[in-house]
Amino acid sequence: MYRTKTCGELRIENLNQEVVLAGWVQKARKMGGMIFIDLRDRYGITQLVFNQEINSELCERAAKIGREWVIQVKGKVMERSNKNANIPTGDIEIITGELTILNVSEVPPFTIEEDTDGGDDLRMKYRYLDLRRTNIRANLELRHRMAFETRSYLDKLRFLEVETPVLIGSTPEGARDFLVPSRMNPGEFYALPQSPQTLKQLLMVSGFDRYFQIVKCFRDEDLRADRQPEFTQIDCEMSFVEQEDILNTFEGLTKHLFRTIKGVDIPDFPRISYADAMKLYGSDKPDTRFDMKFVEIKDLTTRKNFVVFDSAGYVAAICAESCASYTRKQLDELTDFVKRPQIGAKGLVYVRYEADGSLRSSVDKFYSQDDLKAWADRCKAKPGDLILVLCGETEKTQKQLSELRLEMGSRLGLRDKNKFNCLWVVDFPLLEKDEELGRFFAKHHPFTGPKPEDIPLLDSNPGAVRANAYDMVINGVEIGGGSIRIYNSELQKKMFTILGFTEEKAQAQFGFLMNAFKFGAPPHGGIAFGLDRFVSIFAGLDSIRDCIAFPKNNSGRDVMLDAPTAVDQEQLDELNLQVRP
Amino acid sequence: MYRTKTCGELRIENLNQEVVLAGWVQKARKMGGMIFIDLRDRYGITQLVFNQEINSELCERAAKIGREWVIQVKGKVMERSNKNANIPTGDIEIITGELTILNVSEVPPFTIEEDTDGGDDLRMKYRYLDLRRTNIRANLELRHRMAFETRSYLDKLRFLEVETPVLIGSTPEGARDFLVPSRMNPGEFYALPQSPQTLKQLLMVSGFDRYFQIVKCFRDEDLRADRQPEFTQIDCEMSFVEQEDILNTFEGLTKHLFRTIKGVDIPDFPRISYADAMKLYGSDKPDTRFDMKFVEIKDLTTRKNFVVFDSAGYVAAICAESCASYTRKQLDELTDFVKRPQIGAKGLVYVRYEADGSLRSSVDKFYSQDDLKAWADRCKAKPGDLILVLCGETEKTQKQLSELRLEMGSRLGLRDKNKFNCLWVVDFPLLEKDEELGRFFAKHHPFTGPKPEDIPLLDSNPGAVRANAYDMVINGVEIGGGSIRIYNSELQKKMFTILGFTEEKAQAQFGFLMNAFKFGAPPHGGIAFGLDRFVSIFAGLDSIRDCIAFPKNNSGRDVMLDAPTAVDQEQLDELNLQVRP
Repeated sequence: MYRTKTCGELRIENLNQEVVLAGWVQKARKMGGMIFIDLRDRYGITQLVFNQEINSELCERAAKIGREWVIQVKGKVMERSNKNANIPTGDIEIITGELTILNVSEVPPFTIEEDTDGGDDLRMKYRYLDLRRTNIRANLELRHRMAFETRSYLDKLRFLEVETPVLIGSTPEGARDFLVPSRMNPGEFYALPQSPQTLKQLLMVSGFDRYFQIVKCFRDEDLRADRQPEFTQIDCEMSFVEQEDILNTFEGLTKHLFRTIKGVDIPDFPRISYADAMKLYGSDKPDTRFDMKFVEIKDLTTRKNFVVFDSAGYVAAICAESCASYTRKQLDELTDFVKRPQIGAKGLVYVRYEADGSLRSSVDKFYSQDDLKAWADRCKAKPGDLILVLCGETEKTQKQLSELRLEMGSRLGLRDKNKFNCLWVVDFPLLEKDEELGRFFAKHHPFTGPKPEDIPLLDSNPGAVRANAYDMVINGVEIGGGSIRIYNSELQKKMFTILGFTEEKAQAQFGFLMNAFKFGAPPHGGIAFGLDRFVSIFAGLDSIRDCIAFPKNNSGRDVMLDAPTAVDQEQLDELNLQVRP
Repeated sequence: MYRTKTCGELRIENLNQEVVLAGWVQKARKMGGMIFIDLRDRYGITQLVFNQEINSELCERAAKIGREWVIQVKGKVMERSNKNANIPTGDIEIITGELTILNVSEVPPFTIEEDTDGGDDLRMKYRYLDLRRTNIRANLELRHRMAFETRSYLDKLRFLEVETPVLIGSTPEGARDFLVPSRMNPGEFYALPQSPQTLKQLLMVSGFDRYFQIVKCFRDEDLRADRQPEFTQIDCEMSFVEQEDILNTFEGLTKHLFRTIKGVDIPDFPRISYADAMKLYGSDKPDTRFDMKFVEIKDLTTRKNFVVFDSAGYVAAICAESCASYTRKQLDELTDFVKRPQIGAKGLVYVRYEADGSLRSSVDKFYSQDDLKAWADRCKAKPGDLILVLCGETEKTQKQLSELRLEMGSRLGLRDKNKFNCLWVVDFPLLEKDEELGRFFAKHHPFTGPKPEDIPLLDSNPGAVRANAYDMVINGVEIGGGSIRIYNSELQKKMFTILGFTEEKAQAQFGFLMNAFKFGAPPHGGIAFGLDRFVSIFAGLDSIRDCIAFPKNNSGRDVMLDAPTAVDQEQLDELNLQVRP
């Protein structure tokens, strides 16, 4: 071992001990006849002192050391005269007696500090230097801890972690698969799993009873800030359970993580139906750190000759507390915000509930004080509040108003990253109709079970069938989702029919699962969490990238490794493949 | 929850309790007016009783239940009159009051018993049924436990589990990569990692200090019984360490696993140099559960006109205790064994050390009793022992004699699967010369560090340079291997030169690593364990397949999923690829 202690552990109790430390030079500075070096490793920073008067040769060598050099020193722990209360080792320093330069370093292309001067591209190219930054490393330490505690919790409940294969068959439904050509089976391809969904269901058929896996999954999608072509799931499945059992088990997991890692006790999770979530927040992943629920006022707005509202199927308001003082400019900003193409509202109506009790709106021409007072009352607005109203087709408008609600929440500082509001959204619809294609798609996936009481609707009104499906939402982010599965092969066949699979296609893609169901499948259900997002929420990150050691950019490139790349023709020949010119 | 208890937990203490159980019907039998059903779940088997006299309607329904049906029963725990000491629940049975059939089952294609009547192909096609067998499931439970205890041990030592990417760049050195075409970067390919070797080294450059990962790796090789295209490594790396630190840390891991999982205390691991392992066992992964070391006798055999020995560079013997009584037929079997093409010896010389002290050999024509006595003495043979001798070119003959030694060990019952002999093989050569190509290859990989004292030999006699490389061997199986790495970019460059890389090629393939080394790489080293093999050794399996949930066959096919498969032309078009006609 090149050291007897780490750079994070020496305290005043270690006074006068001879120690050997090794690490990176965070910074070096000369003061009078002394050189001070901050030596850094994963565990902390310790100050080294070289004294010209005591050992001038050593001091001369120390003077040549640059940032990020790797050194080993032997020395004695002494009390600092000038203590640094900001770091745990701040009471002591090492009077250096011996110095070994283990490696030199070129000047790094950006500063290795929490607030670095490196831009995103540079940081990603030199990710191995970026990872030296304490805050980035802390994210990965947190990730380790969360995965570890997840395993501890599930192991105690007798879940077994079972590895499922990475090289599987392609199932062109859903997102695009990454394909892997097979050399031994020319012209044939493996696919990388988008999730181990069918495999974990097979494990339930096998009687594994309680399965989990922290596992890489792959989707060849166009990327956004919170999407990566490879991502990690905490994937879980249980047999002989009902929805309630799954919710309790994994609410328990989440509470365990918050308690052991963040020292936060989370109260029991509220449950809200998908229908209510859409009605009250316009979103199936509402941020419930703040209230500001939707208030429908269509009935209060009609027959006042305001054509915009009259012709809208849906008119709804949110009430922003204490925002009646918003300036014209601020209101214009909000109008611009909702009119952005990503949001797409046609306009924004506001009502200022002034401190004196009067109401001033952008639609005063059409609505009397009494009219507006009725709106305000329904919104439970107080003098000083601001009411914001959107209208249009129901679903679109709900989404727009949801964005506006989040924007107001941010503006009002109601989305504190250190506050955690967890909830379950339940009773999702089983199917979603693609109006253009005129066919149904599975809202969750084709294996999701309908609520038993809704099964009769499968023939008469499929769109109304609710699923035994649920999402866990924290602070407006969908952290996990799952469902109780179909375990009856006839019902599964029926689902495939509703989803427009021919018998042949269903057989070709999911034959192994339907066959398995013929041999005694138990009732089962499960859930999968996005670990990247889960860690991001815990770390308060805006993007999942900084909790991933080596992420890819928006073009799916690893700029550090410079992957993907062209390959030798020889390699393609072996695979019996050619690239189109 | 469909049950209040599992099928494995009820005991005499639970007498008279009302319980609900759910599981699979292992078997059903009628006796008089009673029906007995063995109900199975992951946790055990519990006997259910249906009594014609008490409830004839229920009994009638129970009579129709077949093997592997999934049922739920409610009933009362009663003491059995006819106890079964072979199962933990054997003292009790359930007098069934209610029965729900959760799912029916077709008759499975093979019996769901420890000793099944299903052949390998059938078992793999219906793997989900095969996994219901208690012994197969036990292997996967063991695998879970080993992975879990590995994580616990390493976490306590402050190792961080860091996930490295699965989609990386191709490095055509070594085994073949699996390639993954990139849709977003047409004509370019990712590769699946053969190991996270370079990435974990980058994490050391990043200051992660102690890394591990239980991770899938991929090699597109032609397959054998103990190879799979995807396999799992316990991959580890440490900074600021010397070889001794790694050996101690991971010897500790292995002892921890044996202690916590098998209740076995393993003594400190002997260490043997590669040179000695080859000299004494003819193998770099000797099975040391039994002795039977090689004894070189070339000097004792010369100048007796036996041309075969005289013309051989190497003559060596093993002594099989108490085998002098081997019949002609048994000796012929051994001769056939060593002459098989896979082994390739030209013949086998034996010396029977008879009980009366006389020596009878297959080369009596050339060697006197005194000559043979000298061989026997060197072999420390006793009357009653059998000496077996092979000769030829040193390395080839060592390999042949090693195979013969293992065969004799097996014949003599010296390779007990419940005995565990662990050791370290150290001081591997750094390089291996391919005589045909006339160039050196890295014995371990290009990042392995030479022993510092051997560095001067890199120029003068590269083949003689020893590496700081080590393998952990248990019962003749290489369970893990690793090395202290090169951390100096100049030395790394030199290695690439010796290995015949042009500067351009080295830069193209490993540029990111060499660049990283310019920014302060710490001394580091690591090890990787093959989890599949590790579990196999613990489980006493001959093949790794039965500790893998969904393994592939020798053609790399998953016969259950029927993968790989042809894919739609549309999918290939998106990837800008075509399959050669």
